[in-house]
Amino acid sequence: MRDLSGEPALLSINGATIRKQADLLGIIEGCARHGIADISPWRDQIDAVGLKSAQQAIKDAGLKLSGFCRGGLFPADSAHRNEMRDDNRRYVDAAAALGAPCLIVVAGGLPQYARPGSAPSKDIVAARAQIEDGIAELLAYARTARLPLAIEPLHPMYCADRAAVNTLAHALDIAARLDPQQSGMLGVAVDVYHTWWDPDLYAGIARAGREKRILAYHVCDWLVPTTDMLNDRGMMGDGVIELRRIRAAVEDAGYSGLIEAEIFSDRWWAEPLDTVLATCVERYRTVV
Amino acid sequence: MRDLSGEPALLSINGATIRKQADLLGIIEGCARHGIADISPWRDQIDAVGLKSAQQAIKDAGLKLSGFCRGGLFPADSAHRNEMRDDNRRYVDAAAALGAPCLIVVAGGLPQYARPGSAPSKDIVAARAQIEDGIAELLAYARTARLPLAIEPLHPMYCADRAAVNTLAHALDIAARLDPQQSGMLGVAVDVYHTWWDPDLYAGIARAGREKRILAYHVCDWLVPTTDMLNDRGMMGDGVIELRRIRAAVEDAGYSGLIEAEIFSDRWWAEPLDTVLATCVERYRTVV
Repeated sequence: MRDLSGEPALLSINGATIRKQADLLGIIEGCARHGIADISPWRDQIDAVGLKSAQQAIKDAGLKLSGFCRGGLFPADSAHRNEMRDDNRRYVDAAAALGAPCLIVVAGGLPQYARPGSAPSKDIVAARAQIEDGIAELLAYARTARLPLAIEPLHPMYCADRAAVNTLAHALDIAARLDPQQSGMLGVAVDVYHTWWDPDLYAGIARAGREKRILAYHVCDWLVPTTDMLNDRGMMGDGVIELRRIRAAVEDAGYSGLIEAEIFSDRWWAEPLDTVLATCVERYRTVV
Repeated sequence: MRDLSGEPALLSINGATIRKQADLLGIIEGCARHGIADISPWRDQIDAVGLKSAQQAIKDAGLKLSGFCRGGLFPADSAHRNEMRDDNRRYVDAAAALGAPCLIVVAGGLPQYARPGSAPSKDIVAARAQIEDGIAELLAYARTARLPLAIEPLHPMYCADRAAVNTLAHALDIAARLDPQQSGMLGVAVDVYHTWWDPDLYAGIARAGREKRILAYHVCDWLVPTTDMLNDRGMMGDGVIELRRIRAAVEDAGYSGLIEAEIFSDRWWAEPLDTVLATCVERYRTVV
């Protein structure tokens, strides 16, 4: 395993982690102040400050990106399909313009939640077919932009309204069907929050390594009790996830990339930005 | 598919569905009043009125049981292992005394949650090994009592604190290892709330049928948004689960047993008992 006890050279901060405390420019300054060399911004954060100014600030601070959040949300009725396609292409373009190593792709759930206004459906099997078709179409566009797509399976509790790809095995099956040549343009993002419960997790990580699919690794923690399904993720070390064991498996599978802290948490959004970043660095050194 | 549009002959009411409105005697009277022929009580409900009086009331009302809730919660440190074993044996004895067709078995999560007071652990792999050992030990006891065990996989959001068996495939794998002879003494309970999201659901149901494991079928619905991880289950038809499609698969797999409505819901616990039962009957006829 890699030694994380020194400078946080492999730590990346996902923009959502401190989105309530600062805009992207403030996040960039904060990361630089704490010796954090990498970030993963969300498109709304880019839009809020403008692409040019985001590019300049990232360059001036000497930061790298670990990813860009997020494309996807594929299920849509026919009236919303063009909007979905164009929206995703803009995500690819923005990620490429910023020099992101990949676009994080969140599948979307049933069409009425993935693309509001779509005709309601309960057909999760059909939604999954749309997801796979959507990834196939976006992949063709992403190849021309040389921008890899990282499918992020989300926890099954988000199946209906956020993502109907809920296991690493499912994400890897999609990648195997759409990119059998293992071109490097289609992979997965492994997030401990979404995958820790899976009895096939370690088999899935090993397979993802063999098939050269691991494009991103995200950490936070699972709290007991979890009081909110969206915004009660834990700081690394505060929950029950075996972070070291999972990171060892990911690194054994050949992953040598960044470790991104992505924490949706009302509790941590209420803390000062410097407290959150200092805590992320300390936990990165001691428990991640 | 079986026709449910007439009398609710296949409907069973899980005791949790109306546990805030009445004790077991009140639940039995209510079910009889609504033409519901079957219930699935919880042990605390039996204890509250006494086993003899529960037996008599069930007999007087002409009710059958669809199951008995619930054994399991296997992970424990060494100081709590005897308590766990004895507790589970008492569940088997109570279920057998009541003539239940099976004991619902919920695996338990990490030991500090499954058996409070146990030394804390984050090792979910070890917890799963304890679960399998615990089922093996309980199965030997249950065989002497001629009381089948139904492993109920719970939704992955309960992995840490309630059950670390979270997929039908995992439950079936355990059953295959511990009861390869398919004796009928070890099977699964399929609950739509816990399994609907699973991309392998239909394959799992078909396998469960081939291996003769389906001992119980539970229904409710998944609401969007779900505002509470424990007590915001939906009434059948109010959420996004394709109830008819799943029941068709379960029946195609050979299941000919009861359909049990198990709804943990603050909203429905606030309604009068007769409203809840009448709604269960109406939804059973129209959407289940």
